Amino acid sequence: MTKDFFAGLEPVRFEGTETSNPLAFRHYNPDEIVLGKRMEDHLRFAVAYWHSLAYEGGDPFGGPTFLRPWQAGGDMAHAGAKADAAFEMFRLLGQPYFCFHDADVRPEGASLAESVSNLERITDIFAAKMEETGTKLLWGTANMFSARRWMAGASTNPDPEVFAYAATTVKAAMDATHRLGGENYVLWGGREGYETLLNTDLGQELDHMGAFLSKVVEYKHKIGFKGTILVEPKPQEPSKHQYDFDAATCIGFLRKYGLEKEVKLNLEQGHAILAGHSFEHELAVAAAEGMLGSIDMNRNDYQSGWDTDQFPNNVPEVALAYYVILRAGGLGSGGTNFDARIRRQSLDPEDLIASHVGGMDVCARGLKAAAAMLEDGGLEAALADRYAGWQAPEAQAMLSQPLEEIAAAALARGSDPQPKSGRQEILENWVNRFV
Amino acid sequence: MTKDFFAGLEPVRFEGTETSNPLAFRHYNPDEIVLGKRMEDHLRFAVAYWHSLAYEGGDPFGGPTFLRPWQAGGDMAHAGAKADAAFEMFRLLGQPYFCFHDADVRPEGASLAESVSNLERITDIFAAKMEETGTKLLWGTANMFSARRWMAGASTNPDPEVFAYAATTVKAAMDATHRLGGENYVLWGGREGYETLLNTDLGQELDHMGAFLSKVVEYKHKIGFKGTILVEPKPQEPSKHQYDFDAATCIGFLRKYGLEKEVKLNLEQGHAILAGHSFEHELAVAAAEGMLGSIDMNRNDYQSGWDTDQFPNNVPEVALAYYVILRAGGLGSGGTNFDARIRRQSLDPEDLIASHVGGMDVCARGLKAAAAMLEDGGLEAALADRYAGWQAPEAQAMLSQPLEEIAAAALARGSDPQPKSGRQEILENWVNRFV
Amino acid sequence: MTKDFFAGLEPVRFEGTETSNPLAFRHYNPDEIVLGKRMEDHLRFAVAYWHSLAYEGGDPFGGPTFLRPWQAGGDMAHAGAKADAAFEMFRLLGQPYFCFHDADVRPEGASLAESVSNLERITDIFAAKMEETGTKLLWGTANMFSARRWMAGASTNPDPEVFAYAATTVKAAMDATHRLGGENYVLWGGREGYETLLNTDLGQELDHMGAFLSKVVEYKHKIGFKGTILVEPKPQEPSKHQYDFDAATCIGFLRKYGLEKEVKLNLEQGHAILAGHSFEHELAVAAAEGMLGSIDMNRNDYQSGWDTDQFPNNVPEVALAYYVILRAGGLGSGGTNFDARIRRQSLDPEDLIASHVGGMDVCARGLKAAAAMLEDGGLEAALADRYAGWQAPEAQAMLSQPLEEIAAAALARGSDPQPKSGRQEILENWVNRFV
Amino acid sequence: MTKDFFAGLEPVRFEGTETSNPLAFRHYNPDEIVLGKRMEDHLRFAVAYWHSLAYEGGDPFGGPTFLRPWQAGGDMAHAGAKADAAFEMFRLLGQPYFCFHDADVRPEGASLAESVSNLERITDIFAAKMEETGTKLLWGTANMFSARRWMAGASTNPDPEVFAYAATTVKAAMDATHRLGGENYVLWGGREGYETLLNTDLGQELDHMGAFLSKVVEYKHKIGFKGTILVEPKPQEPSKHQYDFDAATCIGFLRKYGLEKEVKLNLEQGHAILAGHSFEHELAVAAAEGMLGSIDMNRNDYQSGWDTDQFPNNVPEVALAYYVILRAGGLGSGGTNFDARIRRQSLDPEDLIASHVGGMDVCARGLKAAAAMLEDGGLEAALADRYAGWQAPEAQAMLSQPLEEIAAAALARGSDPQPKSGRQEILENWVNRFV
Repeated sequence: MTKDFFAGLEPVRFEGTETSNPLAFRHYNPDEIVLGKRMEDHLRFAVAYWHSLAYEGGDPFGGPTFLRPWQAGGDMAHAGAKADAAFEMFRLLGQPYFCFHDADVRPEGASLAESVSNLERITDIFAAKMEETGTKLLWGTANMFSARRWMAGASTNPDPEVFAYAATTVKAAMDATHRLGGENYVLWGGREGYETLLNTDLGQELDHMGAFLSKVVEYKHKIGFKGTILVEPKPQEPSKHQYDFDAATCIGFLRKYGLEKEVKLNLEQGHAILAGHSFEHELAVAAAEGMLGSIDMNRNDYQSGWDTDQFPNNVPEVALAYYVILRAGGLGSGGTNFDARIRRQSLDPEDLIASHVGGMDVCARGLKAAAAMLEDGGLEAALADRYAGWQAPEAQAMLSQPLEEIAAAALARGSDPQPKSGRQEILENWVNRFV
Repeated sequence: MTKDFFAGLEPVRFEGTETSNPLAFRHYNPDEIVLGKRMEDHLRFAVAYWHSLAYEGGDPFGGPTFLRPWQAGGDMAHAGAKADAAFEMFRLLGQPYFCFHDADVRPEGASLAESVSNLERITDIFAAKMEETGTKLLWGTANMFSARRWMAGASTNPDPEVFAYAATTVKAAMDATHRLGGENYVLWGGREGYETLLNTDLGQELDHMGAFLSKVVEYKHKIGFKGTILVEPKPQEPSKHQYDFDAATCIGFLRKYGLEKEVKLNLEQGHAILAGHSFEHELAVAAAEGMLGSIDMNRNDYQSGWDTDQFPNNVPEVALAYYVILRAGGLGSGGTNFDARIRRQSLDPEDLIASHVGGMDVCARGLKAAAAMLEDGGLEAALADRYAGWQAPEAQAMLSQPLEEIAAAALARGSDPQPKSGRQEILENWVNRFV
Repeated sequence: MTKDFFAGLEPVRFEGTETSNPLAFRHYNPDEIVLGKRMEDHLRFAVAYWHSLAYEGGDPFGGPTFLRPWQAGGDMAHAGAKADAAFEMFRLLGQPYFCFHDADVRPEGASLAESVSNLERITDIFAAKMEETGTKLLWGTANMFSARRWMAGASTNPDPEVFAYAATTVKAAMDATHRLGGENYVLWGGREGYETLLNTDLGQELDHMGAFLSKVVEYKHKIGFKGTILVEPKPQEPSKHQYDFDAATCIGFLRKYGLEKEVKLNLEQGHAILAGHSFEHELAVAAAEGMLGSIDMNRNDYQSGWDTDQFPNNVPEVALAYYVILRAGGLGSGGTNFDARIRRQSLDPEDLIASHVGGMDVCARGLKAAAAMLEDGGLEAALADRYAGWQAPEAQAMLSQPLEEIAAAALARGSDPQPKSGRQEILENWVNRFV
Repeated sequence: MTKDFFAGLEPVRFEGTETSNPLAFRHYNPDEIVLGKRMEDHLRFAVAYWHSLAYEGGDPFGGPTFLRPWQAGGDMAHAGAKADAAFEMFRLLGQPYFCFHDADVRPEGASLAESVSNLERITDIFAAKMEETGTKLLWGTANMFSARRWMAGASTNPDPEVFAYAATTVKAAMDATHRLGGENYVLWGGREGYETLLNTDLGQELDHMGAFLSKVVEYKHKIGFKGTILVEPKPQEPSKHQYDFDAATCIGFLRKYGLEKEVKLNLEQGHAILAGHSFEHELAVAAAEGMLGSIDMNRNDYQSGWDTDQFPNNVPEVALAYYVILRAGGLGSGGTNFDARIRRQSLDPEDLIASHVGGMDVCARGLKAAAAMLEDGGLEAALADRYAGWQAPEAQAMLSQPLEEIAAAALARGSDPQPKSGRQEILENWVNRFV
C-alpha cells in the first residue's frame, strides 16, 4: 500500500553548495571531519516517526490534508505499511536514527493487553528492518496524551487507575526501546499539568510525577537499559500549564526528587521560545548542570503562540545552539531529532524529503560555524578576559568569607568599582564572521 | 519643603459601600473580623517607598512629570523632606507597614563609606518616626541595579570588586532593616541575569549568586535578625534574562544551594504575568513547597510587555490569589506590599492617596471573597472528591511499588480507566458566586 | 438517538443571587428592565451551534472526548439528531438566538450540489423547529476552513476554482440565513491569510477578498436580506497571519474597497487578546467608526497563545465591554454570541448547560454594572471635563487653520501648556464601585 | 570637549571577508554594483542622532552609564560639542545620511520661542558641517514625547494649547529639515495613543490627529518641501496603545483622512515584532499599497516585550526584508536608518563605531542575498506558477460576475477543486541557498 509512495525519488546525496537540486545536501556531508569527528557523529540526526509518518495534516480548524495510504486504517496491516514507508524514507535520507512514540507505530488495541501486544509485534518488525538497514533508534517514548483516558494527565491523574495504566504503558515502551537498542528513553509531560488550579492539587500531582519518574529510573536499571532517561521541557499546550515548564523548572523538579544524577533533558527550540527563552539559554542552563541530554531541532514561528514544530531554517540561530553544545562536550548519547512537521499544505512526498534535507543542511552549516567559532577562540578569549578578575586569589577567597568581613575590607579600601564595556555588539559581529 | 504637599487631605476612613467619596475606604475596614482574624492582620498592607516617594514620573521615552519638592536634590535635607512626606502619607492611609530600598531613602554618598553612613543617619530618622507613628517595616532591601556600577550585575558581576561592594551594601541594608524591626529582608535580583550569553558565564554567575545568598543567611543568624529572607522572582527587565525567572526557578536555585529551609519567596502578580503564569500559579507553586513568603500586589497590564507596576483593580483575580494564600495558612511574617506606581500622568497628591485606597479596597474585597469561598467549602469538597481515589490503600500502595508490579496488576485486571468530567466551568461559576 | 441526552435537566430559571443551584440564573433575568429596556433585548444571547453541538473535545494533541451520540456519523440522520439536541438545549437555556456554520448543521455531500441540497434540507428542519420554539437566528455563516479544499484559503485561494466553490458555498449559507430570518450574516476569514509570504501574493489576495465581499453585499441586496453583513477580526490561527487581523485592519480594508457603509464588525474578546488589544479597545475602535455590529463573548486565556474560546467569567472586564456598547447605542441587530466551548474535560451534559448559565450571568452582571456607570454619569462627566478646552471657539477654529498660523499665534502668546492629572487610578476606582 | 572622544579610530574601510578587524567592513562596499546600482545607493544608510549621540545609557531601572562629555549640560555649547562628535562619527563611518529629532540637537529653551530659535542656530551649524563633509539628511522629525508637556499626547492632547504647541514644534522641525535638504520628514506618534480608555475620547483624538497630519501635508506643499512625509507604525510604548499600531492601521487611518496619496510609512523591524508581525509582513503590506517609504533597520529582542532597538544581526531575516524592498522597486527617497542603540553596557567609543559597522555589514549581506534571489528568479517563478490559474480569462471574468452566476456555473460544472502543495519548506530551503 506504500509501494509507490516515494516513487521516483532517489537517495539524497551530498552535492555541495553549487547544486540547485532541492533534493541534494549542500552542506551535510556525513563523513566530513569537524573538530576531529565525522559530521554524522556530531549531529546524530533522527527522523520523528510521528510527524513524518503519523501526522495527517490536521489542525484545530481543519481535518487531514495528507491522505497517506497507510493512514486510512488503525489495524496492523496499516501499521506495517507505515513502517515500510518509514524505512523507505530513512533509506532516502540516510540519517542514522529515528525516534518513536508507541502510539505512532502500533494500532491501539481493544484492551491494554492488546495494545501492549501490538507494540511487541511492531517491535519485531522494526528489529528486522533495523537489522537490515542499519538505521538505529535514538529514543523511544510513550504517547500518554492523545487517547481520551489521558485527558486529565497520566502519572498526575486524579484517578489512580490512570497512573497504573501509565505505568504499564511506559514499561511496554521502555521494553520496546531496550529491545531495539535505543540510546535514550524520553518522557514528555503531555498532559502532566493543569487546565485550572480550581480542580488541581498541584503538590500531590508533582509528588506523583516524582514517584513515577523514580520508578522509571529504577526499572531502567533493573532491565539493564544503558540509555539515558530524558525529560522534555515545555511550558504549555496541550495543558494551560505544563509542569515541565522549562529547563530550570525540570532541573529543580529532578533535584527535589533526588533524580538529578539519573535524568537529563531533551531540549527543543520551539518549546524554549514558547517559554520565553532563547534556545541557547535552555541549552546553557542544562549544560551548566551537566544535564544536557539531547535536542529536538525544530523552531517555533516567532509570531505564533502555539507549537508550530517547523524545520529549522535560520543558520545563525542554529549555530549558536551548536556552539553551546560543542562547548558542553557534544550531544553524548543524545542526538538531533527533528520533532518537526511539514506544513499542512505541503502535500507531496517530495515535501517530506526536502524539508528534512533543508533541516539537515541548516544544522550542518550551524555545526560548522560553531566549530569555526571554537577554533577561532575569539569568543572564549573575550569571555575569559571579562571574568579574569575572579582568577585572583583574593577574589576566590572572598567566596568563602562571611559578609561582614568582605564589607569591612571593601570599606577599608574605599571600594569603587569602575564599569567596563560588555562589548555585546562587537561579540555579535564576531559571531557574524562565522555564520 | 513638603509642608503643604498633602494639604487639605484627611486620614482615609472606612465609610462603607454606599459612599461615593473617592478618598474613603468602601471595603477595607481594618478591625473587621474575617475568618477569626482582623482584616488588617490578614492583609498586612505596606506602602512601597520607592514608587510612592522616589519615582519621578519618567519612562523610557520621557523625563519626570511629578516634580515633587523633595525630588529636586540628592542631599540629606531632601531625603529628610521625603521622609516627612512619606510618614504624612502613611498617616493619611493608615496602612501598618512600609518597605524601602536603601537608595530610596538616603542620598548616594561620595564614597561607599558615606553611602553607608547616610543610610545610618536616615535609619535614625526613620526609627524616631516609626516610634512616634506606629508604622512598621515589612521589609527592607538594597537597590543594586540603578547606579552605574551595577550595570553588569551585583553578586553575579564579572568584576569581584562589585561583589565586594554588593556585600557591603547588603550588610548595611540588613543592619538598617534589623535596627528598624523589619519583619523580612528581600533580595530582588535587579541585574542578576544577562544581556547576552556571548559575554556570560552562566554557571559561574549562578554559583556566585548562591554563595552570596548563603552569606546573607549566615549574617542574618549572626546578628539575630528574626525576619524571613525573601527572594523575588522576575523573568526579565532590566536584564534580557533574570536568573530568578519565576517561582519554580527560584525554588530550584534555593534547593541547589541548600537554602530551601532558609529562604522564601516574595511573589508579584506583575512578574508572574511577565513570566507567562497566572499569579495564583506562582502562589500555588510556592505554597506547595512551603515557601510562600510575601506578596507584591501590583498587576501588569496584559497588553504590555514591560513591568507596568499598576495598582490591582480586578477583584476576581485578587480573590483567587488570597484564596491560595488563605489555604496556605496566610502570609505569616509577609504582607501585601504595593510595588505599584501611579501612572506618569497622575500628577496630584490626591492620585497618590486614591490609588492606594483603591488597591486596598480591591484587596479587602478579594480577601473577603476568598474567605467566603473557604467558609462555603464547595471548592475544597469538589477537589477532595476529584482525588478521592487516591485515598484507597491500594492506590497509596502503588506509589511505592515498582513499575513492573503495577503493570502486571493493571494487565491482570484489564485496566480500563474511564474519564470523569473536570467540571471546570462549574467551578468557575462557583467562584463567581463569591466575587 | 439524543432522547435522553439532557435527561433530568429542567429549563434554567432565574432564582436570584441567594441560590446555590448551579443550574439557575443568579443575575440573568430576561424581563428585568435595564435603562428602559428588557435585559434580554439588550443582551440578545445566542448559542453557537458549532462549539456546543459539533465540537467533539479534540485538541492538537488528542482526539475526541465527548462522544456525543450524534457525532458518530456524517449522515442526515445524525444531523437531525444533532438538531434535536440543539433545540432541546435551547429550550433548557431559554436564550433567544443561535448561530451556525453550514458545516455544523449539514453533512458534507459527495458533491458540491449535494452539500447545498443537504443544507436546504436542514434549513427546512430548522425552520420548523424555530417556528415551534420561537428560537431565532442571530446569524449564519459558511465554514470555509475545515475541509481540505480550503487549505490555502477561500476567496483568496491561488486556485480560482476554490474562489468559485466559495461563492457557491456562501450563496447557499446566505440563502439559508435569509430563509431562517437571520438578523446578520457573518464572514470570518478562516484561512484568508498566509502561512508564508514566500508563496503568497498578498496584494492580489486582498483584492480578491475585496471583490468577493462586494459580491456578498450585492447579493444581500438582490435577495432582500435585511440583516447586517459582518466580518470578524482575528490576528492569526489557523493561518500564521490572518488578513482580518483586528478591528482597525478590517476597517481599513472595508474603506479601501468602498464597503464601509455596508459591512460592520463582529468582535470577539478572545481575538482581541490574541491581537494584543483589550476587548474594550476593539469595541471602541469599531464604535468610533459606527461599525460595531455584534460580539462573540468568549475570553481567551491570558497565558495561552492560541484560541481558547472560553466562557466569560470576569465581570469587571465584561462590564467595560458593555459600557462601550451601551455608550455606542447598544448592539442593534447584533447580539451576544458565545463562541465558547466547554473544556475538553467537561464531559457531562450538565457542563454544557452550566457553562452557558455562568456566561449569561456574567454578562448580565456586566450589563447591569455598565448601566449603573452610565446612570451615575461620573465617568462621562470626567471625560467631558478633560476635553472641555476643545469646546472653546478658538480651539475649534484651530482645527481649520493652517500650521503656520497656529504656530505664529502660539509663539505670539508664549504658549506654555501645563499638564493636568489624567486621574487614571481614580477612574479605575470609580469603575470598581459598580462591578 | 569632544576632541579626543574618538581618538585613535580611523575611518572604516572595506577590507573584505577575510579580515578580522572589528572596525572594518567585511561586506559593505559602497561602490560595489548590485543589480546595476551602487550598494550605497541601494542602502542609503543613516545614523540616528538620538541613539548615537543623545542616549545616555539609562533604562527604567537605572541611570546613565555612558557619561559622554557633551551630555553634561543642556546649553548651546554642549549641543555644539555633540554636533562635533556626530560629524566626526559620520566621518569615521562614511554613511551618506543622518536623521535627527529637534530635541536631540538643540537645547530646550526657556520658552517656545527660544526652543525654536535654538533649533535655527543649530540648523546653521549643521548646514555648514553638511556642506563641508557631504553628509546628507535622510529625515528630520520633532520629539513630541519626552518633555512633560506631551505626557497626554501632542496633536491628540485633551488640551488644545498642546495641539498649538505641537503645530509650532513641527513647523520648526519641518523648516529645519527643508533648509538642510532633508529627503523626508517623519512623524512618529510618540504619545499619540492612550493609557486608559476611561479617560480617552478615541474618536475625537483620531480626528485631531488626522487634521494635524493634513496641515503638515499642506505646509509641506506651501514651502516647496519635496521630501516625503512619513508616519511610523508602533503598537505600544510609551503609551499602552499607540494609534499608529501597525502598517495596516496606519494605512486605514491615512485613507480615512484622504492622505493615502500624500503620506508613506517608515517601517521598523522592532516595531513589527512588537505588533505581532514579521518585518517582511509590514513591508509587504506597505508595498502592496505603494506606501513603502523608508525603514528603521533595528531589531527587537524576541524575548523582550519592550522596544530594545538593537542593531540588526540576523542576515537571513534582513535578506527577506530587502527582498520585499527590491521587489517593490527599492527605497526611493527613503533609506536604511539605524534607529538602534548600543547596549547600556557598551561604554566605549569603539562600541559605537563597531555596532554600526556590524549593522551595515549585515544589511550589505542581506541586500546581496536579496539581489541574488531576484537574479535567480526561482522564488518569483514559483509564485507565478502558484497563481497561474488566475491568468485564465474565465478566472479574471469571475472577478466581475455576481455571486449567483459564479455559483450557478460552479454547480453546473460540478466544481471540485483539488489542493496542490504550497511547497513552503522547499521555498524556505531555496532562500537558504542565498543567505
